Amino acid sequence: MPQIPPAEPGMREEEVDTPALILDLDAFEANLDAMAAFLAPTGARLRAHAKTHKCPVVALQQIRRGAVGQCVQKVAEAEALAWGGVGDILVSNEVVAPRKLARLAALSRISKVALCADDAGAVERIEQAAEAAGTRLPVLVEIDVGAGRCGVAPGPEAVALAQRIAGSPHLIFGGLQAYHGRAQHIRSPAGRAEAIGGAIERTRRTVEQLRQQGLDCAIIGGGGTGTFRHEAGSGVFNEIQAGSYAFMDADYAANEEAPPFRQSLFVLAQVMSTPKPGLAVVDAGHKAVPTDSGFPKVWGREGLRYAGASDEHGNIAIEGGARPALGETLRLVPGHCDPTIDRYDWFVGVRGGRVECLWPITARGGMA
Amino acid sequence: MPQIPPAEPGMREEEVDTPALILDLDAFEANLDAMAAFLAPTGARLRAHAKTHKCPVVALQQIRRGAVGQCVQKVAEAEALAWGGVGDILVSNEVVAPRKLARLAALSRISKVALCADDAGAVERIEQAAEAAGTRLPVLVEIDVGAGRCGVAPGPEAVALAQRIAGSPHLIFGGLQAYHGRAQHIRSPAGRAEAIGGAIERTRRTVEQLRQQGLDCAIIGGGGTGTFRHEAGSGVFNEIQAGSYAFMDADYAANEEAPPFRQSLFVLAQVMSTPKPGLAVVDAGHKAVPTDSGFPKVWGREGLRYAGASDEHGNIAIEGGARPALGETLRLVPGHCDPTIDRYDWFVGVRGGRVECLWPITARGGMA
Repeated sequence: MPQIPPAEPGMREEEVDTPALILDLDAFEANLDAMAAFLAPTGARLRAHAKTHKCPVVALQQIRRGAVGQCVQKVAEAEALAWGGVGDILVSNEVVAPRKLARLAALSRISKVALCADDAGAVERIEQAAEAAGTRLPVLVEIDVGAGRCGVAPGPEAVALAQRIAGSPHLIFGGLQAYHGRAQHIRSPAGRAEAIGGAIERTRRTVEQLRQQGLDCAIIGGGGTGTFRHEAGSGVFNEIQAGSYAFMDADYAANEEAPPFRQSLFVLAQVMSTPKPGLAVVDAGHKAVPTDSGFPKVWGREGLRYAGASDEHGNIAIEGGARPALGETLRLVPGHCDPTIDRYDWFVGVRGGRVECLWPITARGGMA
Repeated sequence: MPQIPPAEPGMREEEVDTPALILDLDAFEANLDAMAAFLAPTGARLRAHAKTHKCPVVALQQIRRGAVGQCVQKVAEAEALAWGGVGDILVSNEVVAPRKLARLAALSRISKVALCADDAGAVERIEQAAEAAGTRLPVLVEIDVGAGRCGVAPGPEAVALAQRIAGSPHLIFGGLQAYHGRAQHIRSPAGRAEAIGGAIERTRRTVEQLRQQGLDCAIIGGGGTGTFRHEAGSGVFNEIQAGSYAFMDADYAANEEAPPFRQSLFVLAQVMSTPKPGLAVVDAGHKAVPTDSGFPKVWGREGLRYAGASDEHGNIAIEGGARPALGETLRLVPGHCDPTIDRYDWFVGVRGGRVECLWPITARGGMA
């Protein structure tokens, strides 16, 4: 499905076709280094989450700067990463469809691939796929540490499922998946600390009960951009699964004591109409910058507020200063980086006002 | 960017890899025929809007069943349609970037292409692109008939801009673009009738003033799935730009006296976890079924409610009846069809429970 890329290396940022996904390379690289520096003294490893970036090039940059591998949420993401040279991938999620499990088992020939389970019936499906492919698949037990979504209860129920996995000739017990998604966006630091304190305690208890049964956890994974300092410093978790840290967004920036990373990700939009005083219309609406976590912010322009979205239009209210001119470009800070990146085919890497590179977002889209 | 398609012809629907975009072909075809039957006695033409479907195959089906051409919102959509065999395309939107205008002018060599303007400076940019390409581009004047977004004021301001276009050796005055987007989702029939009554009056007045200056409107376009009956019956509009009518969604279905079309579009999701009583988790969250117009509805299953979304998960609350089993698939009715379709690479066409076809959604994505 050919599409004309929105930019070419060497172009000035304001010449890029809009809407486009701009990656400020200086900020992006600083974020990777900041995370590596933070984690080094804790001993926790970084397994960065590709659900955020969907791009093998980003994954390899993260690995070059200290990550041990990648997390994904879907089989198609695992495929895109493996095909793009990533050698160690954890599907931090359940997979139950036979066709998808067959694809994952096939993929394990070229990359190290693990996945999660929270149900004995699901373990049986994974076992059948591994057996049919003549491979052994590592399976982590997902425990619900407070998110109230997927996962078995911590403690005995998790231990029983781990034993079921460990007892299979086609599977390897891979450890625990213990991610508390909702805690990432609790605004108060005390609230986040309390939520993750509970998650750490439930995980610690489960790890101990597993050890009593002779089951060691190669991976004890969790943590996101909002809470990773707690998991990394816990002495319990050995892998951190942050993804947004490389990019940031308006929702994470709204946390009190926001994560210590720079905004590297922007949607570049162009003023396409200035129909009346106080209003400029840009070419980035719902389809270009998802609004599930609120409207985007206009970057570096006091007095401009993104005030309304339709499918392909954004209304910019002029609440002070000059109205931007027809044709002018604005950087928007997305409310939520994950679904925003997922809308685009290319990261347009910019440094010093010039396009430096184009990176294909090969795992993007609502695929399986 | 290769991706494995989610299905193959002949497969049963429940075998399709999820999340997937399902098109019920019987309902889809019935919708196309229903629109053609409605418009026939009014004399208004259908120029169906491809911002909804993003797929040249759908466009050609619409044209085969009576549409005179297509609308798009973006240059990249025009390219995808022209490359897919669509010969008559209106960009029902402003385009101001020189690079995009050059692409559009180039495209006019293989398809009939028109676009809109609401600013004399924008007309000058279009003129330069047409001159550079050695072509003449038809330009419609967009008037704001109540939406409060793009468009010049109806009446003298529109006439002046039309004269500017008509006076250019590189442009052709193409008519009026008069779409009232916000009116589509006014819940009450009386409210919609009143809003569109005003739009019709403003358009009628402008058409008359243009005629007094010797300017005829080849296209007087507007109308969407929520209001097309008013525009088509007005005797003023000669083209209807509906798009959602082919698919429908939960938001349109919530209108009182909802549009007379069948739900043909679904997101197929799979139950990937049943972690506790009262809850099933499916593999379709924000990225698979955008929530800007509310959560999706579960189709044909009393007692199941889509109660919460995260990036790749949807929580289904069991409020009556049996909990669906692990691995079971559910059809979800999207809240808003346009950004939902835009997430996918393929329509999976289904008839009688079997996959009949795969249609590529080549214009999807946050592209320029």
